[in-house]
Amino acid sequence: MIHNFNAGPSILPKEVFDEAAKAILNFRDTGLSILEIGHRTALFQSVLDEAVLLAKELMKLDGDHEVLFLHGGATTQFFQMPMNLLNENQTAAYLDCGTWGTKAIKEARVFGNVDVVASSKDKNYTYIPKGYVIPADAAYFHYTTNNTIEGTEMYSIPETNIPLIADMSSDILSYETDYNRFALIYAGAQKNIGAAGVNMVVLRKDILGKVDRKLPGMMDYRKHIEAGSMLNTPPVFAIYVCLLTLRWLKKIGGVGAIEKINRAKADLLYKTLDEKEGFQPTVAKEDRSRMNVVFLINEPELEKKFLEACREQQMIGVKGHRSVGGYRVSLYNALPLESVKALSELIYQL
Amino acid sequence: MIHNFNAGPSILPKEVFDEAAKAILNFRDTGLSILEIGHRTALFQSVLDEAVLLAKELMKLDGDHEVLFLHGGATTQFFQMPMNLLNENQTAAYLDCGTWGTKAIKEARVFGNVDVVASSKDKNYTYIPKGYVIPADAAYFHYTTNNTIEGTEMYSIPETNIPLIADMSSDILSYETDYNRFALIYAGAQKNIGAAGVNMVVLRKDILGKVDRKLPGMMDYRKHIEAGSMLNTPPVFAIYVCLLTLRWLKKIGGVGAIEKINRAKADLLYKTLDEKEGFQPTVAKEDRSRMNVVFLINEPELEKKFLEACREQQMIGVKGHRSVGGYRVSLYNALPLESVKALSELIYQL
Repeated sequence: MIHNFNAGPSILPKEVFDEAAKAILNFRDTGLSILEIGHRTALFQSVLDEAVLLAKELMKLDGDHEVLFLHGGATTQFFQMPMNLLNENQTAAYLDCGTWGTKAIKEARVFGNVDVVASSKDKNYTYIPKGYVIPADAAYFHYTTNNTIEGTEMYSIPETNIPLIADMSSDILSYETDYNRFALIYAGAQKNIGAAGVNMVVLRKDILGKVDRKLPGMMDYRKHIEAGSMLNTPPVFAIYVCLLTLRWLKKIGGVGAIEKINRAKADLLYKTLDEKEGFQPTVAKEDRSRMNVVFLINEPELEKKFLEACREQQMIGVKGHRSVGGYRVSLYNALPLESVKALSELIYQL
Repeated sequence: MIHNFNAGPSILPKEVFDEAAKAILNFRDTGLSILEIGHRTALFQSVLDEAVLLAKELMKLDGDHEVLFLHGGATTQFFQMPMNLLNENQTAAYLDCGTWGTKAIKEARVFGNVDVVASSKDKNYTYIPKGYVIPADAAYFHYTTNNTIEGTEMYSIPETNIPLIADMSSDILSYETDYNRFALIYAGAQKNIGAAGVNMVVLRKDILGKVDRKLPGMMDYRKHIEAGSMLNTPPVFAIYVCLLTLRWLKKIGGVGAIEKINRAKADLLYKTLDEKEGFQPTVAKEDRSRMNVVFLINEPELEKKFLEACREQQMIGVKGHRSVGGYRVSLYNALPLESVKALSELIYQL
């Protein structure tokens, strides 16, 4: 058995792979591949509709939120979002707590002013800043709920009356939270939603239509809402993989059920790393991510043994992001507890 | 046997479906699904590299052209391209010869001025305008080589010294032409390149870096070139399907070989439609598309019989685009000559 700790694109449930492969050969007994069906057919419409409904159900969204499946990944949202929400003379508030947040800040500055309310750059983003004030007159407040690269996560939702916006690419649907408190959430699919090539955006319509600039059609959220995520040819197969993954999540009991498993996985791994000499998690205890566990190995000899053992036991994707080094083990929804148990044993036995 | 005349997403070679399904279960004997491998692995890098090389080879591109695989479909290029190439005070020249060209014009106007040098709107875009003059001082000249919805196609490349830009979404790689004469070509993959969810952009670097506006990172072609189409997580699986489709095209003899087959398919179908009473191609003879054959059926009784026969003989995707009505039969690269023979027989026998 391969244990896939990839940070994304990452492991998906086996039944998703099986169903996806089947659909490529013969989609719903039509004799056609899902890759050759028209996107404006009832067949595909039912895929999209069910994916939207499941996302709403799993996130327990109220009637005010729209769910879109868009092209371009979260990196496109870094600029599409301020393009839609931030006037040139306005200021948006951002929390700077990792590589992706930094990129989001840079893109927002193309369209307006950015007030960085707090940053954890001083300690290489190994903690989540606290005690900052969100200005009441900012256009919106943006933060990253989980920092994939640095391994920090922010479970509590900041208190503010301005629109809350979150990049949830790497922890969406992994724990229960009040998704309704957000004006806009975006997430690249390739961790907990599905495969690479599509991006989920959850938003409240009332925040739209307030900027002065002319928007290209493809960048205008209102047009995507109107067209039901079919303003142009959508990434059909990627959306189908989202549907399969969301179905799986519902089947195993939804977000509450997966949260329990995710907690068990993270608890076991952090316990192991804290106990085992030579292993050192890099993140402040209270801010540790349950999705991406980042650590160092202090002795070169131990490091060599660890990597060898990983190779032998088919544990892949444990190397840290090229920008921070060390090790990173990702524990997304689809990663079974067994994989973490195997890794924990491997570490204890070194 | 199902005959798939879909306009896109559309038929792909059977071996592409087989290989794609296999890769979802076990990619290159790694024991991993292609949906769960990291995009920054040697495995995926080899997919992307080979796809780029094959595209260059099949299009016979010289060393000046870069090939990118981007998110967002051709509709994103409608605005990304002028965003990169057209200053606010500049004018770009556009040929208005169909629905998609009209959309491209609208998006360009968000960024600068547009001079529509000619239009065939007067006759519902059923012909390609001729004898127009391309202004020598325009920033670039843009046209659509094949009009998917209206069924016209433009094989000859206009003479001009300004940068030539083409939307080739629906006829790229279907006939031999001098791709090197274009400064920029873009094409949604879901017809002749692969599956929906990725977009190929072929461009010359020297046209870039000349606009004054600040570009969001994801919209800056230079950044995508620098990052080798990996500025963010690429649509991994969609690019893999492109690779498989390009490999197939090379294997059967390349663009010259497929052009012969495409000519045979289109010739047979147009001949049938011209000869059969009650059937009426809508496009001027000299401008007929080899990719999308648009026609009307003049008698309601014949229309009913045609649709019934199509159902019986599993011919799908023959209905015209919702915006123009009538019928449309798409003959993309992967559609076998046998399907056109079967359709031709069906029509003659009505």
